[in-house]
Amino acid sequence: LNTFKPGSRLPSDDVRHVAVIGLGLIGGSLAHALARANVNVVAHDTDPATRERAAEVPGLSVAGDVAGAAAGADLVVVAVPLPAVADVLAGLDGYRGLLTDVVSVKAEMRALVSAGPATGTYVGAHPMAGSDRSGFDAADPDLLVGCPWVLCLEEDTALPAWCAVARLLTGALGARVVPATAAEHDAAVARISHLPHVLAAALAEAAGSGDASALARTLAAGSFRDGTRVAGTRPDLVAAMCGGNAAALVPALEEAIAHLSEAKDLLTGPDPIPALTGWLRAGYEVRARWPAAAGEPYEVPIEPDALLALGRRGGWVTAVSPTDDTATAVEPDPR
Amino acid sequence: LNTFKPGSRLPSDDVRHVAVIGLGLIGGSLAHALARANVNVVAHDTDPATRERAAEVPGLSVAGDVAGAAAGADLVVVAVPLPAVADVLAGLDGYRGLLTDVVSVKAEMRALVSAGPATGTYVGAHPMAGSDRSGFDAADPDLLVGCPWVLCLEEDTALPAWCAVARLLTGALGARVVPATAAEHDAAVARISHLPHVLAAALAEAAGSGDASALARTLAAGSFRDGTRVAGTRPDLVAAMCGGNAAALVPALEEAIAHLSEAKDLLTGPDPIPALTGWLRAGYEVRARWPAAAGEPYEVPIEPDALLALGRRGGWVTAVSPTDDTATAVEPDPR
Repeated sequence: LNTFKPGSRLPSDDVRHVAVIGLGLIGGSLAHALARANVNVVAHDTDPATRERAAEVPGLSVAGDVAGAAAGADLVVVAVPLPAVADVLAGLDGYRGLLTDVVSVKAEMRALVSAGPATGTYVGAHPMAGSDRSGFDAADPDLLVGCPWVLCLEEDTALPAWCAVARLLTGALGARVVPATAAEHDAAVARISHLPHVLAAALAEAAGSGDASALARTLAAGSFRDGTRVAGTRPDLVAAMCGGNAAALVPALEEAIAHLSEAKDLLTGPDPIPALTGWLRAGYEVRARWPAAAGEPYEVPIEPDALLALGRRGGWVTAVSPTDDTATAVEPDPR
Repeated sequence: LNTFKPGSRLPSDDVRHVAVIGLGLIGGSLAHALARANVNVVAHDTDPATRERAAEVPGLSVAGDVAGAAAGADLVVVAVPLPAVADVLAGLDGYRGLLTDVVSVKAEMRALVSAGPATGTYVGAHPMAGSDRSGFDAADPDLLVGCPWVLCLEEDTALPAWCAVARLLTGALGARVVPATAAEHDAAVARISHLPHVLAAALAEAAGSGDASALARTLAAGSFRDGTRVAGTRPDLVAAMCGGNAAALVPALEEAIAHLSEAKDLLTGPDPIPALTGWLRAGYEVRARWPAAAGEPYEVPIEPDALLALGRRGGWVTAVSPTDDTATAVEPDPR
């Protein structure tokens, strides 16, 4: 799926000048990637040492504060962890352009924007890419190329703003733009991003406790390595995204706990091997069919209902027409 | 750590002729690797098509039944899933050489050998390597090179037999031979291999349920991919290893469920982000220190207490002296 060639398509005509606020892994990777796509990028980070290193990246300008970065921007991207968002929004007071973000929790982010000062036309977003590394030094312009990128569509979202951001992301980064409401996004990522982080931490801790823990860690191989990879992410970053999405994560976690308790009961029951075989099948079927192949591209109208229905079927937008009338859509092949 | 060059060391003098019973992923990989190390290998599998494909591998002979494969062997390796072991042991009735296995559950395997017909001098074993693929077509002679390989040491284990198998595994495959009792092995693998399989299945199923499951699967990225990788393993194989080790897996699973319930309580509590940060730290510390660096090699006496203490410290044997007096040992560097 990821066949986009960086630089092969012109970025959006609406968005020529982007401010990226926050130069961690995602903000740093985005700033790099947009600069490489010949978008004018001005970046800001609260850390002076990070600003110094960012200033050395070709095509990247650096501003000493949020307002300075936003001055003259067509689009401001908020790329700080959730607990730091309110301060950034305060610094954007009076900004009148497009506003988006990369924060992994969308309902909470939307509430912060609504409650904050007037800061332009907001379209919530979340690129589905990451790494167990963090910070600007781990930034990589290829990290975000071709990734699924949720672009929130609510009743009050301005469609021209949605189209402008979608055109930039598809054009400059080859993103697969997935239309979804904030609530739909939060329910989905609770299951495929936040729950994996919580389970990985529990699994890593299990190898550190018990009577045979030094032996266990020496015997640990591929299943432990992959199952715990994201447990190596900074705990405060994981807690910010999981805690910020607690309303959606808690039911998913309760479901997983109930499912694991069922496995425990089967293991202590009369015929554990056939019983557990049946229990394992549901997860096996999901994993064996993932990732799904992509179907043939087709056109959908730029209308909220049609776009949200596309997102609910697991589909995405690969391009927006110059007139904002239609989008090129792809969805998983049902075969 | 994995710097062993296949063919760089002579295989064991005691073991020149090996029978491998069962040509799945592990048995097939072992047969390939031993043949490449110039050991005489005769293999058997119950599936005629698998036997035909195995006969095409250079250096590999194939026998039509278990007894035929074992005839003239110095060492027989049982490489079938636990439910098929009893039939293989019945076919080895009267065999008098060395016997080992690669079954992932050691107490149950030991009980089967004790209860079965007399079948040579048994040393239980388990190589810590795998893949989400299975079967002879997925076999790879490099899969087992340099991997941790538990070699069980019980009160009734014959030390010369233990040394002969250890010499073959270190010499022909560069294995890191880890001495442990069956009970210690089973407790350790419950945490680092069986629990990961159960958690991966629960995680994969979570992405297949809920209102937004098509959207969730499209948004699923690296944390889902790695966290669910082993959920793609055949359910009957996973159930055989987990169900065969239920006595050790159940307490590990109960501990993980309790730990996850604690996370759920923190997420519904008054201050979820700092509370969850603290909860995540234990797993983070384990993962950040894994895998440990290896210390300098040293000599240990071939004595059960010394070898088992080495295993409990997370150490392993890289070579056995020709006289069976000492072993070269390595353990994790505490720094």
